[in-house]
Amino acid sequence: MGDLLGVAVLGAGHMGADHIRRLDQVVSGARVAAVADPDRDRAEAAVAGLAGVTVHTDPVAALDAPGVAAVLIASPGPAHEEALLAAFERRLPVLCEKPMVPDSAGALRVVEAEARIGRRLAQIGFMRRYDAEYQRLKALLDGGSLGRPLMLHCTHRNVSSPAGFTSAMLINSSVSHEIDAARWLLGQELTAVTVLRPAPSAGAPEGLIDPQFVLFETERGALVDVEVFVNCGFGYQVRCEAVCEAGSARIGDEHTMVVTARGAAREEVAQDYLVRFADAYDREVQAWVDAARRGEVTGPDVWDGYAAAVVAEAGVRALSTGGRATVDLAPRPDVYATAGR
Amino acid sequence: MGDLLGVAVLGAGHMGADHIRRLDQVVSGARVAAVADPDRDRAEAAVAGLAGVTVHTDPVAALDAPGVAAVLIASPGPAHEEALLAAFERRLPVLCEKPMVPDSAGALRVVEAEARIGRRLAQIGFMRRYDAEYQRLKALLDGGSLGRPLMLHCTHRNVSSPAGFTSAMLINSSVSHEIDAARWLLGQELTAVTVLRPAPSAGAPEGLIDPQFVLFETERGALVDVEVFVNCGFGYQVRCEAVCEAGSARIGDEHTMVVTARGAAREEVAQDYLVRFADAYDREVQAWVDAARRGEVTGPDVWDGYAAAVVAEAGVRALSTGGRATVDLAPRPDVYATAGR
Amino acid sequence: MGDLLGVAVLGAGHMGADHIRRLDQVVSGARVAAVADPDRDRAEAAVAGLAGVTVHTDPVAALDAPGVAAVLIASPGPAHEEALLAAFERRLPVLCEKPMVPDSAGALRVVEAEARIGRRLAQIGFMRRYDAEYQRLKALLDGGSLGRPLMLHCTHRNVSSPAGFTSAMLINSSVSHEIDAARWLLGQELTAVTVLRPAPSAGAPEGLIDPQFVLFETERGALVDVEVFVNCGFGYQVRCEAVCEAGSARIGDEHTMVVTARGAAREEVAQDYLVRFADAYDREVQAWVDAARRGEVTGPDVWDGYAAAVVAEAGVRALSTGGRATVDLAPRPDVYATAGR
Amino acid sequence: MGDLLGVAVLGAGHMGADHIRRLDQVVSGARVAAVADPDRDRAEAAVAGLAGVTVHTDPVAALDAPGVAAVLIASPGPAHEEALLAAFERRLPVLCEKPMVPDSAGALRVVEAEARIGRRLAQIGFMRRYDAEYQRLKALLDGGSLGRPLMLHCTHRNVSSPAGFTSAMLINSSVSHEIDAARWLLGQELTAVTVLRPAPSAGAPEGLIDPQFVLFETERGALVDVEVFVNCGFGYQVRCEAVCEAGSARIGDEHTMVVTARGAAREEVAQDYLVRFADAYDREVQAWVDAARRGEVTGPDVWDGYAAAVVAEAGVRALSTGGRATVDLAPRPDVYATAGR
Repeated sequence: MGDLLGVAVLGAGHMGADHIRRLDQVVSGARVAAVADPDRDRAEAAVAGLAGVTVHTDPVAALDAPGVAAVLIASPGPAHEEALLAAFERRLPVLCEKPMVPDSAGALRVVEAEARIGRRLAQIGFMRRYDAEYQRLKALLDGGSLGRPLMLHCTHRNVSSPAGFTSAMLINSSVSHEIDAARWLLGQELTAVTVLRPAPSAGAPEGLIDPQFVLFETERGALVDVEVFVNCGFGYQVRCEAVCEAGSARIGDEHTMVVTARGAAREEVAQDYLVRFADAYDREVQAWVDAARRGEVTGPDVWDGYAAAVVAEAGVRALSTGGRATVDLAPRPDVYATAGR
Repeated sequence: MGDLLGVAVLGAGHMGADHIRRLDQVVSGARVAAVADPDRDRAEAAVAGLAGVTVHTDPVAALDAPGVAAVLIASPGPAHEEALLAAFERRLPVLCEKPMVPDSAGALRVVEAEARIGRRLAQIGFMRRYDAEYQRLKALLDGGSLGRPLMLHCTHRNVSSPAGFTSAMLINSSVSHEIDAARWLLGQELTAVTVLRPAPSAGAPEGLIDPQFVLFETERGALVDVEVFVNCGFGYQVRCEAVCEAGSARIGDEHTMVVTARGAAREEVAQDYLVRFADAYDREVQAWVDAARRGEVTGPDVWDGYAAAVVAEAGVRALSTGGRATVDLAPRPDVYATAGR
Repeated sequence: MGDLLGVAVLGAGHMGADHIRRLDQVVSGARVAAVADPDRDRAEAAVAGLAGVTVHTDPVAALDAPGVAAVLIASPGPAHEEALLAAFERRLPVLCEKPMVPDSAGALRVVEAEARIGRRLAQIGFMRRYDAEYQRLKALLDGGSLGRPLMLHCTHRNVSSPAGFTSAMLINSSVSHEIDAARWLLGQELTAVTVLRPAPSAGAPEGLIDPQFVLFETERGALVDVEVFVNCGFGYQVRCEAVCEAGSARIGDEHTMVVTARGAAREEVAQDYLVRFADAYDREVQAWVDAARRGEVTGPDVWDGYAAAVVAEAGVRALSTGGRATVDLAPRPDVYATAGR
Repeated sequence: MGDLLGVAVLGAGHMGADHIRRLDQVVSGARVAAVADPDRDRAEAAVAGLAGVTVHTDPVAALDAPGVAAVLIASPGPAHEEALLAAFERRLPVLCEKPMVPDSAGALRVVEAEARIGRRLAQIGFMRRYDAEYQRLKALLDGGSLGRPLMLHCTHRNVSSPAGFTSAMLINSSVSHEIDAARWLLGQELTAVTVLRPAPSAGAPEGLIDPQFVLFETERGALVDVEVFVNCGFGYQVRCEAVCEAGSARIGDEHTMVVTARGAAREEVAQDYLVRFADAYDREVQAWVDAARRGEVTGPDVWDGYAAAVVAEAGVRALSTGGRATVDLAPRPDVYATAGR
């Protein structure tokens, strides 16, 4: 397929470093050409041993570095808007980690900028769309054999939340994955959201509203419920059951090796999203590299990133009021098709 | 254990006839002594071949028939109040099918009548408490190893609804099982209810709001959600997942014989509650017979029947308004302990 | 169905006492009329609190006691032949625990005695035929949708073996269940047996050959393999996979409540055959009582008991020689149909 | 990690073409530098669109082509010995598809050639060692928490066998995977083999002995049984249960999306080994490329390839005689450690 795709990686933190490893050691057809991080030491550490990489503290400088033909944005969310716009100016294909832009106003500016160019440049990092189980479920729903989807029952559990995790982040960081997954699986926009708050678990940090039970309504009357529980203590569990008119389908029940000993049959539960979704990250980046080398951009688009931001904001409002919040999207530019295609 | 318990069975319809068969052929220690049904032919057919049974059209006459030492009420719900009060007068132990009394005012009169007598005479037919899986879950929750329960996720699906089934009956007939199960499993009263209505399935009869998604709040802040879908088309599925502070537990995933053929591993799904809960019915009636022969009454009590009626009424209100309805219980007489003991 | 069936129970040990409890408290239509045990105290203890029971030290006296219309033999195996013949003489319906008769010569005498009478009087206690999962597998195989069965893979594991359990008893006590189940499921006689001996587990008592791997050939070329491991330490597991020309079917994978906690999804494994097969014992005895009250005898017959004895003897020979032993059955009297009908 | 590893691929058939795709599009750090196939058109088609690849009909010429630093042998088995020896001469790291060399005499010559060089050059393509489930099982067994392994129960089923598949190939092509997996999982050599032949399935081609049931004994007394059934009709199933002194562990029960519809819960079964083991092939080749770039060779070695050849030959003998065949290995050169390390 020709030369390796030279990638500028913006951000050398946990996620950026993991993507550098992936571009170097896992996926085919790409190489790291530049890295940028305000912390130059961290940037240098992340590319130690790699040849032909320039190191920057200014992300824009990285975009202009020699050999850069594409950009992977893994910096903190607030830096994404500026980086996306700079990449758009240079017409560089971008893979941007989620959240695309944390606030809906900024997200809309990104939509408008790309729409003005008139063709897609960015793929947004909703990696669940690249998970084999989710793809199987999507194919089943699209195939139509089970009829119209009526409800999605979702579970999103983490062992524990990192320091500084707020009640709003259960919505706009954790549930944002379900927001995109629901839009994509159903091919519908979400129109309203309600957040229920059971008595918090003793296992959650003081003051954190955890678990939450989030209810989404969709434009064609489906219901999506999400249990989000980020201090469940026992494992990382992501499940989804689609209930349709003629049957239901469920993914996410771990089933690997069954060990029977001492009176019980046991299966290990993943402790970490990087374990559960390792393959999805690999396939996401490989798909982006492959498309970029063909001169294309595929996968989740900036409209998906924008819609997720608007829904998450409505969710945070619903959390704080205890009531129902509606989702109000701007008109969709023609360059973007329907939800979750 | 001495003589057989002579039972008067009131009602000889589907359920009554099944209980007659059970008393005669399945459980130990009892015999059918009398049967009553307004349709004498039906009553006679139900006891054909049994010796020593008197047949009545008047339920009260059946209570006074020779050899009657206990009453099993399987007549339609509206007839229950009068039958219960007549049995109380005669101090006969009663097993009363659900709903105990369809309206909460009548249910309260039953509570008050038994409370005046000052000891328990009636066991209410919430047979899920006698199902092995539910009992296992109850024992786990009571044992405390998983900490406090935060949420119950419940599923209640039927292949199809009988003729004349109304939208309200999804609450007061179907979900009434989950109402009792939740009160019992959690040992808490339910305090409010909200009913969400996804776009109805094309598989449901015109005008029936099916599925529904019902949310209960409890007195100590737990959340109970129930998907009820009575025209799901594929099987009878009753599941419950209890999410607790230190783990979760799930029952109701069928697992019997796995047949692998033609590209898939398949397990049969029960089509009928009489299949899924056959053992529970047998154990319920056996437990009642055993207790009655010891001069005792155990199991779900009339307070449980009353609370279920009040919660179901609130659910039907919530269904019609689309909002949240609160549950207002009368003061609990001392003879009844806390919820779901 | 008329009067209760008066049963004489021979043997008041573990199994006899459990059957007395079952006749009294679980199954419908029967009562204990007499009990016999060489240890009179044990016999009296087993029927304490029951009315109308005579207690004997001589089994034959129990058969002649007032009210006795049927016999349940739960005495030690060596006493079975005499008890069966005495019951036959009196034309009493019998339920005889396995082994019917421990040695094939004695078993053949029982066959001949019943054949001379010309109709069935005895049901043999192969209770797996009454287990819901085995019945489902049998129905599937008989239905023919998977084609001809080619292989059965069986597992038979116990937590630990009782004191005095010998290497031969893994065959003639444990695997005897699989011998009958295989004959019944396949509807074929077993024709040869080979026993393989992996290095014994450190968990087995010194000198006990445990586990063993037993291979049976059948008259129409199917293969049956059985892992028998009676000191596996972790649970009681009985599984069977039937591999057919067009698919396979598997029973015996426990699946009850799934508890997820501390990094694993766990399901409890039964520790005891009385837990795993409790329902099967209940249904076996109920079926026998029901048939006896109709004047019939159904279920496994004495030919099944005889065939199991001959196959087990061949298995013990194969165990001791390390080679293959053939199974040589006497001609089958006309009163008995083909294997496992 | 520096420059891309230039690989000569020998053989451009089904497997060779798949490895060319993998080197080009999936794994990181390698590129195809040369390809050889007696059918030049096929070789050219397999590398169409790739830059910098030379095409050859002579495998030795491919080894000497510009840019070649490593060799992947995917030609038919009979060509492997010559290719391996030529690669050894050039001290090129090799990944050789199984069978390493079809006959044990040739396999031994390869062992001796590499042993003379005194260091490892070849990795043999037993890709199950790179499957996540097998690795989990290996780690569990090595960890020792379940005690010593006593038995392995293995299943190897294919939908249907390709044209020309012989009864011997069930052993030396299909079961050869289990031969290596058993040696690796147990860390023991296999010492004897017996093959049982149930009546063939009507689904198997006329004359093919299918299924077969293969029993291996190991040097420390474990037992390995393998059901191999290459015309099972319903799917590709590879399972392994390790029974140990303190518990058992099972892998290979497919569990992906559960679809409940029309009275059954269904899971799809893989139809093809390229689906079931796609990840394992990817990880195998990536591991080989990574090691080669570090100047190392890891994974299954030529002794493993030799041992598999000897055991398979014994298996074919046992199949033809119906008896037990012993496995006689040459002395193991010091450069190779114990079985399956």
